[in-house]
Amino acid sequence: MITIPKITMAPHGPVFSTFVQGYWRLGAWNFTAQQRLSFLKSHVELGITTVDNAAIYGNSEQLFGEALKLDKSMREQIEIVSKFGINGVAPSPDSNRVSHYDSSKEAIITSTENSLKRLGVEQLDALLVHRPDLLMNADEVAEAFELLHQSGKVKHFGVSNFSASQFELLQSRLSKPLITNQVEINPLNFNVFEDGTADQLQRLRIRPMAWSCLAGGSVFDKNSEKAIRLHKTLHELVEEIGASSIEQVIYAWILKHPSKPVALLGSRNLERIKEATGAITLTMNAEQWYRVWVAAKGHGVA
Amino acid sequence: MITIPKITMAPHGPVFSTFVQGYWRLGAWNFTAQQRLSFLKSHVELGITTVDNAAIYGNSEQLFGEALKLDKSMREQIEIVSKFGINGVAPSPDSNRVSHYDSSKEAIITSTENSLKRLGVEQLDALLVHRPDLLMNADEVAEAFELLHQSGKVKHFGVSNFSASQFELLQSRLSKPLITNQVEINPLNFNVFEDGTADQLQRLRIRPMAWSCLAGGSVFDKNSEKAIRLHKTLHELVEEIGASSIEQVIYAWILKHPSKPVALLGSRNLERIKEATGAITLTMNAEQWYRVWVAAKGHGVA
Amino acid sequence: MITIPKITMAPHGPVFSTFVQGYWRLGAWNFTAQQRLSFLKSHVELGITTVDNAAIYGNSEQLFGEALKLDKSMREQIEIVSKFGINGVAPSPDSNRVSHYDSSKEAIITSTENSLKRLGVEQLDALLVHRPDLLMNADEVAEAFELLHQSGKVKHFGVSNFSASQFELLQSRLSKPLITNQVEINPLNFNVFEDGTADQLQRLRIRPMAWSCLAGGSVFDKNSEKAIRLHKTLHELVEEIGASSIEQVIYAWILKHPSKPVALLGSRNLERIKEATGAITLTMNAEQWYRVWVAAKGHGVA
Repeated sequence: MITIPKITMAPHGPVFSTFVQGYWRLGAWNFTAQQRLSFLKSHVELGITTVDNAAIYGNSEQLFGEALKLDKSMREQIEIVSKFGINGVAPSPDSNRVSHYDSSKEAIITSTENSLKRLGVEQLDALLVHRPDLLMNADEVAEAFELLHQSGKVKHFGVSNFSASQFELLQSRLSKPLITNQVEINPLNFNVFEDGTADQLQRLRIRPMAWSCLAGGSVFDKNSEKAIRLHKTLHELVEEIGASSIEQVIYAWILKHPSKPVALLGSRNLERIKEATGAITLTMNAEQWYRVWVAAKGHGVA
Repeated sequence: MITIPKITMAPHGPVFSTFVQGYWRLGAWNFTAQQRLSFLKSHVELGITTVDNAAIYGNSEQLFGEALKLDKSMREQIEIVSKFGINGVAPSPDSNRVSHYDSSKEAIITSTENSLKRLGVEQLDALLVHRPDLLMNADEVAEAFELLHQSGKVKHFGVSNFSASQFELLQSRLSKPLITNQVEINPLNFNVFEDGTADQLQRLRIRPMAWSCLAGGSVFDKNSEKAIRLHKTLHELVEEIGASSIEQVIYAWILKHPSKPVALLGSRNLERIKEATGAITLTMNAEQWYRVWVAAKGHGVA
Repeated sequence: MITIPKITMAPHGPVFSTFVQGYWRLGAWNFTAQQRLSFLKSHVELGITTVDNAAIYGNSEQLFGEALKLDKSMREQIEIVSKFGINGVAPSPDSNRVSHYDSSKEAIITSTENSLKRLGVEQLDALLVHRPDLLMNADEVAEAFELLHQSGKVKHFGVSNFSASQFELLQSRLSKPLITNQVEINPLNFNVFEDGTADQLQRLRIRPMAWSCLAGGSVFDKNSEKAIRLHKTLHELVEEIGASSIEQVIYAWILKHPSKPVALLGSRNLERIKEATGAITLTMNAEQWYRVWVAAKGHGVA
């Protein structure tokens, strides 16, 4: 069986698994609590010990917590990541209020305490800022982080979807390195490789956590010239590198980036998860990596 | 009466008023010298003690200086900001010359000395680079700043309309922090909140000075989908936060940003100025702030 | 005769000539080895002692090496720059492989050793990364640089076509400053003046090396509104600054930038080279510099 490597996310950062199980769609899976526990145990057995959640993912923290309660020994075997920062507003005919971000000290602490309650755990391994808030007062966020750390409620802190300048701003107020920037990476959108975000992370030796690795499934569509080119290239590479699917090729492509991303998986299907993680056994050379780049861009390198 | 707070612009920076009276249109106001003095005294009484001028604002330095001469005691009660850097060229049929920037040592010193003469004062509280000059030799600018500081002609230095990289370049040559980056901020254009400019300022604890807070009046137009959306939202907020006008809402919206901007006022109308400064008594929450964002963008937050 | 100044490229960097002779088209010149030697001697006599080559420039390293072998004393009179990083793939009907970048340690060392063999020299004065490789592992590049430096094969290191964040990433792993970023600069494309690249170089006191100063000859075309405007302005300036050609005006325009670029020349024609270098004797003021900017942009400065 494949052993999924454990890696350190950042200087003084936590040890996570190279693949991270995402739970954002847990509510839609219609699993019983027992099925959720069994799913969790199965991916932990594969070596996927890090799980990703967020306050905003419907009732998925709650559902995850229910499963965890059925076997409390599981808590010690996993690393739990969650996020705060988006205040959803239920649209109603008589309201003009909008969903928004909130990174006030109170909002951070309340949101995190609610996450802990829903998850039924004492501590998060990492808390991420879900989205960059234009109203982020970095001093205030740092204060909230400090309180959450001192009280033992959160071990490590990171961000998601941050630009390089937003990252630098928040980092400037913190005594320890942020442990990740969770960002979108897939063959249809690898902006972070080109806009300085990944350069910054590599420089600071902080690993990105890649979300939407399959672009929400749209890497399988063929509804554009670009998608058709990509499809063709990914299929060629299945053969060449001995992969079992284009999914595996995509994960290998993401993991090859020198910023050393860890990859989020979103599937509820264990076979598919097992399949995807096979990517770590594959070797892709620079020419093959750029072949995907060329297919995405529609032109060769300069 | 409202007390307009005094704030420190930057580490080791000067103390300015949260609202700054802009004098760029002074020439068009057709005030007598006595009227200008009386206008100045009135806004100083309100607590608006910082005034903004520039070498390039027609004859407004001259006109301001004439008023100041009528009551020399006023100099001690105000902080004067001016700017250098644009060399206007009067277009003429037989000339192909163009307006341009000039940040040579000689140009900086000459322009500043001319500003002092026109204003009839010994010292500027702050001198700003008016526009980023692609030909800016940062060593030369630093040398000019040093000379102007040593001779007592300028107390503090700042910039206007600078990108983050231009700011970092000039700062790298100076021994003291720049005290501001004067930039455009209004609900129709808040690029600096999103392009890294404000992130840098917040990180360095340097306050932006917001110009064109009302977008030259075009926040009151309804000539586009966006303007109509904004108008509707600003009007809603007038009610909700207990403002007396959409102007107040706009200033409250700008002042809420965590980079802590000070806001330039351009009106010649004291009632309107008094009105605008009422913004500091208003409380706007994050949801309300983002409602303006959503109206400007035409879509919700991610 | 004009003396072409020698300048230091960066802190602790090498001394190069202000004009650098480019050899990328050497293969197309159809010179005999003797003609190549004589051409080299002639431009060295003019003071152009720095020469630019690259592994990817067809057989130009080989051809240059052949000339050098005819008079070994020339090696001591010149500074040789070459580049690695692009792996060309000959297209063939039965191959789907693509040209790509390769900055693996092995590729860097092998490419450099091959360059040395082709050039018939023991050492490069500077080795540049030819293109920013999204797969660049900065630690690995630094390791290769260290080995090449220790073995005496390369004295100094630089990059080409790097963004500011890519530059900062690689620099973070090196003990000595990179000595240049070779970038495109001409009146049709001066993006690096505006996107932070030149700001960074000026800040670090590292000189850009300008390639494509004549935009591959297209500065002489009149196939667009922009080109026609530029042409008119450049011609005006020929008169005004006492240049002998628009080429001279262009080089003077590039050299005036405060990041202090050195300029690559690509011509095989000695008269034309001599002509171009005359630019260093010209004086262009800020208004004249911005007149080219205005012609390129199609609007005045703000």
